[in-house]
Amino acid sequence: MFFASDNWAGAHPKIAEALSASAGGYEPAYGNGSLDAKVQQRFADIFEREVAVFFVGTGTAANALSLVSANKVGGLSFCHRESHIMDDECGAPEYFMGGSRLFAVDGALGRIDPEKLASAVDRFAADNVHAGRPAAISITQATEVGTVYAPDQIRAISQIAHKHALPLHMDGARFANALVSLGVSPAEMTWKSGIDMLSFGGTKNGCWCAEAVVLFDLDRARDFGFIRKRAAQLFSKSRFIAAQFDAYFADGLWLETAAHANAMAARLADHIAASAKARLAWQPETNEVFAVMTASTAEALQAKGARFYDWLTPAGFGGVAPGEKLWRFVTSFATTADEVDRFGEMIR
Amino acid sequence: MFFASDNWAGAHPKIAEALSASAGGYEPAYGNGSLDAKVQQRFADIFEREVAVFFVGTGTAANALSLVSANKVGGLSFCHRESHIMDDECGAPEYFMGGSRLFAVDGALGRIDPEKLASAVDRFAADNVHAGRPAAISITQATEVGTVYAPDQIRAISQIAHKHALPLHMDGARFANALVSLGVSPAEMTWKSGIDMLSFGGTKNGCWCAEAVVLFDLDRARDFGFIRKRAAQLFSKSRFIAAQFDAYFADGLWLETAAHANAMAARLADHIAASAKARLAWQPETNEVFAVMTASTAEALQAKGARFYDWLTPAGFGGVAPGEKLWRFVTSFATTADEVDRFGEMIR
Amino acid sequence: MFFASDNWAGAHPKIAEALSASAGGYEPAYGNGSLDAKVQQRFADIFEREVAVFFVGTGTAANALSLVSANKVGGLSFCHRESHIMDDECGAPEYFMGGSRLFAVDGALGRIDPEKLASAVDRFAADNVHAGRPAAISITQATEVGTVYAPDQIRAISQIAHKHALPLHMDGARFANALVSLGVSPAEMTWKSGIDMLSFGGTKNGCWCAEAVVLFDLDRARDFGFIRKRAAQLFSKSRFIAAQFDAYFADGLWLETAAHANAMAARLADHIAASAKARLAWQPETNEVFAVMTASTAEALQAKGARFYDWLTPAGFGGVAPGEKLWRFVTSFATTADEVDRFGEMIR
Amino acid sequence: MFFASDNWAGAHPKIAEALSASAGGYEPAYGNGSLDAKVQQRFADIFEREVAVFFVGTGTAANALSLVSANKVGGLSFCHRESHIMDDECGAPEYFMGGSRLFAVDGALGRIDPEKLASAVDRFAADNVHAGRPAAISITQATEVGTVYAPDQIRAISQIAHKHALPLHMDGARFANALVSLGVSPAEMTWKSGIDMLSFGGTKNGCWCAEAVVLFDLDRARDFGFIRKRAAQLFSKSRFIAAQFDAYFADGLWLETAAHANAMAARLADHIAASAKARLAWQPETNEVFAVMTASTAEALQAKGARFYDWLTPAGFGGVAPGEKLWRFVTSFATTADEVDRFGEMIR
Repeated sequence: MFFASDNWAGAHPKIAEALSASAGGYEPAYGNGSLDAKVQQRFADIFEREVAVFFVGTGTAANALSLVSANKVGGLSFCHRESHIMDDECGAPEYFMGGSRLFAVDGALGRIDPEKLASAVDRFAADNVHAGRPAAISITQATEVGTVYAPDQIRAISQIAHKHALPLHMDGARFANALVSLGVSPAEMTWKSGIDMLSFGGTKNGCWCAEAVVLFDLDRARDFGFIRKRAAQLFSKSRFIAAQFDAYFADGLWLETAAHANAMAARLADHIAASAKARLAWQPETNEVFAVMTASTAEALQAKGARFYDWLTPAGFGGVAPGEKLWRFVTSFATTADEVDRFGEMIR
Repeated sequence: MFFASDNWAGAHPKIAEALSASAGGYEPAYGNGSLDAKVQQRFADIFEREVAVFFVGTGTAANALSLVSANKVGGLSFCHRESHIMDDECGAPEYFMGGSRLFAVDGALGRIDPEKLASAVDRFAADNVHAGRPAAISITQATEVGTVYAPDQIRAISQIAHKHALPLHMDGARFANALVSLGVSPAEMTWKSGIDMLSFGGTKNGCWCAEAVVLFDLDRARDFGFIRKRAAQLFSKSRFIAAQFDAYFADGLWLETAAHANAMAARLADHIAASAKARLAWQPETNEVFAVMTASTAEALQAKGARFYDWLTPAGFGGVAPGEKLWRFVTSFATTADEVDRFGEMIR
Repeated sequence: MFFASDNWAGAHPKIAEALSASAGGYEPAYGNGSLDAKVQQRFADIFEREVAVFFVGTGTAANALSLVSANKVGGLSFCHRESHIMDDECGAPEYFMGGSRLFAVDGALGRIDPEKLASAVDRFAADNVHAGRPAAISITQATEVGTVYAPDQIRAISQIAHKHALPLHMDGARFANALVSLGVSPAEMTWKSGIDMLSFGGTKNGCWCAEAVVLFDLDRARDFGFIRKRAAQLFSKSRFIAAQFDAYFADGLWLETAAHANAMAARLADHIAASAKARLAWQPETNEVFAVMTASTAEALQAKGARFYDWLTPAGFGGVAPGEKLWRFVTSFATTADEVDRFGEMIR
Repeated sequence: MFFASDNWAGAHPKIAEALSASAGGYEPAYGNGSLDAKVQQRFADIFEREVAVFFVGTGTAANALSLVSANKVGGLSFCHRESHIMDDECGAPEYFMGGSRLFAVDGALGRIDPEKLASAVDRFAADNVHAGRPAAISITQATEVGTVYAPDQIRAISQIAHKHALPLHMDGARFANALVSLGVSPAEMTWKSGIDMLSFGGTKNGCWCAEAVVLFDLDRARDFGFIRKRAAQLFSKSRFIAAQFDAYFADGLWLETAAHANAMAARLADHIAASAKARLAWQPETNEVFAVMTASTAEALQAKGARFYDWLTPAGFGGVAPGEKLWRFVTSFATTADEVDRFGEMIR
């Protein structure tokens, strides 16, 4: 009953197998091999257009370097107050940008409120050197609390971004989970809705270590090779990432693993909704389930072998009574219906 | 006949196999798994003492973050003029340090000249805010031109370092190749000779992507977790690195692959020494061979399928006549005696 | 009727005179002259203890470099949401720190709410590399909205700071205005209340350009010389700053000019309180007065020669009705009772 | 007999007087006052074209921020090995650039050798992410050893710069001394010879603290306001710099003080050339004189009240015999013929 995080699972067998299969033979290093080229074309197919793809090693790197690419002197990058780039990257975005600031915007259930975003951005005149100036907007899809932005919600934000000539970045560490939840195409969820830069994550959905920055604005690609190398993210044997993506995309594996993880989350949510010991904080939309219960209840479950963590209550969420806490459960490609049901038993 | 670089090879079959074998099951993420702990103990065994080990994704990261750990305001890190951190990392060390400078020191055949180092460091008074102040010294083992520092040569440098209270860093991207060339122990080649921080590389010697910072000064470890995370080098599924190192160290695989690569380089050097078309620039000590020949000779060889690159002539090397160039040949665990001999045939 | 800012005034005649008087003769440069030494002793006398004093050119530099001195890898510096370092320095603190983040804390009328601060700091475990870690706390005295922290309010914050072993910084761009408002000693308002680092401002209170970082924790002084030089803030002819401070402190000039500015603000506030066209937003405590009125009223006043700007409504301030705005009026050593009364006439 | 540095002198009486005269009255802050505008026009007149002028507080700031303006990801800025930005700014250029590197180029007597520059720049392919890429070239006029670049020497360098599309920066901390030495116009010594960015220094030549970045490429001006503010170099009461420049330019004061300092250096050089105790290292071209003598001779002179420092022997200068050292003597607007002659007496 491992619901601590989707990165507690290792790699999907097909990913591991493909990686092994590509181990032999010589290939040019640093992204110049034939498998690198094949996978880059695969991205273009998936997004139905030309894209620039840069493999990196971590989601933090993908996010930080995307923001570096959009950065300005005195720049401000707007993101959700409880986003991953704000709360879980040890300040990496600001570090890589050399000091530009993340600006927190509120919104219910992990999604930026477009009105609050508009008024936050409007505060800054383009030529006021004192306050700094907007440089980018970043949204997380799926969000840190397992919800998703529908395409029209993305468009509402991209309209604000583009009105101010700001690039719109999507942190897609759980891109596939959001995609299958919405049932839309990768193109529709990104550039057709106004996304300019995408952190495309494979790691949480069955890869070992496969992340990519996907640039829809190809002009940004010119400098990105330098941005990546300078950030120590250019891997010599980059085919080890390419091979993972190759298997990830083959026969729709990535959609299958994401759909499975989401289904397991829904199944877990049903158990929690029916429980007397816990209640669902909000309906899961991807592979994260949030529940409210007392610490003693949680500890009893953990003592019986369930692995999950508490979570900071999102600003504006009022569903936690005194004595209670919020707890996060994450499912993955590796989660089985059996372990979900065993947990269900325990909280009946 | 692939002599372009040791990172054109993929992964050794045993590495790939071990990685696959560790794919299943749940493990705590971010370096907290049981395999992570096992491998860290393995490093301690190898170095015959307690060490702090931090996995990172690239050699550039290992080097840059080691120097961050040693950095001071206005710091200067001394390294060889033609070292990898100086010539091949797009300024990553300075970027991660936030602006501290690499200071080039000369020396024949890739090795820092201790006298020149001493006089370079002596230039800087400890309290002169104008000139900046020494922060660290970094040596490369094996060097960028395939030579090695013998333990007493390392000690000559560490005496200078420690006289000035500077930590001594070793860029060990080709650590194993140097080790088997010298026939000494890992302890002797590092902390017993005065090394404080080590970039330990596995990638060039048969791993997919396995690099580690090894700290012999354990006080440095306190901050290093933050240094690594902020630099986007903390991998969630870190067992994918641990598994590689686990196989790398098992049954002395790492020494075997390094010894093989070195032997192939020696074999290649013999062919070149016997050639009428090329001549050996200097005797190889590890897995890199440097030869002098004309561009037309090189192009003819390349046209027949040999892959190798030209190389900047090291300062002070006078063995290149007008019309000639210097060329680098790198062997690896994957190099076969057959391909070396076929090349030998071609240049006879 | 110039109420736009206290930096629209030039220099007090005595400051200008002292500067001229020190123009001749040779003196060692870079802070090593006799006048530099004299003024540093003067700071020690004023603060009734040994202090380390570093002259810099701007308040932004004093603030940013203080925070650099306290910085950690992954550091978070807590400050008021509407503080100067947050809103008016183009990200300089984060830039000079190389990426560490300012963390906004709320509180009424420009003062950090100690409870909110405590819970903000408590969020961060000391060893969690994901979230970052607290590095410093900074308060502004007087605040950006002209209020002051009483010594016990400073102590309430320093207790939180020191419980977490965080240095407490005071942005004293309007130090003298706060001091005379409170009627306490410099020692009491700073180190006796737990302040570790102070940005001591002279510019807004009658100097041309005289700012200093005052360190009560002398251990910080060792690196600060490098921090300042690297930041391009070490002035060669530093006696031009020393001479200003010398005159500033002579015969209590600094207290006199601050008391005058505060008195002019009180006089202005009385006019506004009695006005039918505007109303006082809150009672001024130093040399800034905030008033609520409609834009058309303000424009009419500006058309008649009054210079003042609108101001962002502080979070939590509910006194601005639709159609109204908040306006700031700043007085200085140069403000005359006559111009205040002329303005009073206009808004009667 | 103060020959330690031209910044041991205070301010020229006319500068001090003008500063005092501008102390009264209100003026918009942050560079928006009427005197700021007047002085900016003055710069345009002097350079015979439209220019963008940004006041900053130190020469280090002017240099560092110019290079920030030209910076690229992975950028390399080429400068003389013994230039001020390399040796005397505590790494400020690299710090402000966020890690881009200064690349040392050799050349006799402080001047970059154009051939060595060309070959240094040629080493770097525009699209090689490993090595980094050229971003700017910086020359010092007058150089750190008191020599000057004639306009055709500047053009030789600007041709290399512009062939590679690199902006050419001039560190003009001693701009006026070079100008009067060459007898050319400011336009001829800068943009007409291919200079794109200029650090224009007034401090060493009679001002208290007056430095400016002059941009001939006006496109760079758009971001420069942010670059300056973020770097804590935007002064609120900027008229205190404007007033100094106003007096500096009035009636040719700046040329007069520079000519005087140069004449004093020539006079001093004559004494040294005639001396039995010391000999001239090379002929001074501006206000710095370098002499060779033994340490005991120097100490005897210092004991009699002469203030001067030793200097690192420039690479390639062979005129210092064992037992001897190189010593620097700097003259300024404040140097008198009498003190020069008294020193002359002492070394006769």
